Amino acid sequence: MTKPAASQPKTKRGIERRAKILAAAEQVIGEKGFAAASIADITRAAETALGTFYIYFSSKEVLFRELVEDMGRATRTQTTERIVDAPNRLEAERAGLAAYLRVVRDRPLQYRIVEEARFVDPEAYRTYYTEFGKAYADQLEQAVQKGEISPGDAEVRAWALMGIAKALGERYVLWDDNVDIDRVVAEAHELICNGLAP
Amino acid sequence: MTKPAASQPKTKRGIERRAKILAAAEQVIGEKGFAAASIADITRAAETALGTFYIYFSSKEVLFRELVEDMGRATRTQTTERIVDAPNRLEAERAGLAAYLRVVRDRPLQYRIVEEARFVDPEAYRTYYTEFGKAYADQLEQAVQKGEISPGDAEVRAWALMGIAKALGERYVLWDDNVDIDRVVAEAHELICNGLAP
Repeated sequence: MTKPAASQPKTKRGIERRAKILAAAEQVIGEKGFAAASIADITRAAETALGTFYIYFSSKEVLFRELVEDMGRATRTQTTERIVDAPNRLEAERAGLAAYLRVVRDRPLQYRIVEEARFVDPEAYRTYYTEFGKAYADQLEQAVQKGEISPGDAEVRAWALMGIAKALGERYVLWDDNVDIDRVVAEAHELICNGLAP
Repeated sequence: MTKPAASQPKTKRGIERRAKILAAAEQVIGEKGFAAASIADITRAAETALGTFYIYFSSKEVLFRELVEDMGRATRTQTTERIVDAPNRLEAERAGLAAYLRVVRDRPLQYRIVEEARFVDPEAYRTYYTEFGKAYADQLEQAVQKGEISPGDAEVRAWALMGIAKALGERYVLWDDNVDIDRVVAEAHELICNGLAP
């Protein structure tokens, strides 16, 4: 599957209009689901003409893929920003999990859209998690080198830790209205650091 | 949302025919997705007349919910069977994770159908994981009482452990053709028992 190019505007106005369509698409597709969300719904929410959509995106599928890619970048950026100041990997794990759960709280539709990508655009879905997993495994590898964590398979650990974050985001953030994120992070962090062994 | 009753056959032939429709639905919906799979596709795969479907299910939605509920029961049964002989909770964790990954390997379409339930029937999806999570947390609670694992919030841990199993099932079983399940389980089990701390 080759990726059809979405066209990039050159003017400030074009850049803003394109960003507005993407933001509207996040809202509309996140709420209605991909199949039910029409291009007309998206342009209406973006307060722009239907034809404007096609200046930037050749189809709803192309826009959807860009949305998923943007979300991957945004989530990585937002979690990375929160962990750069951590004194070591275990503290980075705590800060990263807390940052991720706050991303889910602030942009719950993102979570839904990424999960819908599994069905709408399996390749984009897989790329999303594969890239996240690779970056995560690299960081764990470095932490082993520095003696900040015990040795172990970095990739299995990266996926296990992503699985923890996703499951807790779903249960405690998407399903609960006023979760105490710090409490959930503290409990999970204890498990991540020390495991279940007595 | 009230659940319309699916009707239960009384004869042996009826029971078999109904089970055949459910098995065919797992195949067809798992491969095509819920929206694209028609009732005609399902009855064709079940080698039965289209009208027979409606003897047992009032709609595709009713059948789908039953499919998800069946899968929840089957997954719980198959993992529970594998852990009853475990001498303690840590060994039960190892056996349960291995059993779950084998379920994913043997019935990959189940995984996809349960994930699609998030969009097709969010209530069934939520019930699926909530029931699983409750039973899991109960077991962890008991293990803490017996001193087999360290104390900690049973629900957060149950969801974290389900998240690990789901993520590893996706990465290593659904995406890889010939994964060494025992290796993945061994690595994950080390993390689950002892955590990342050096």
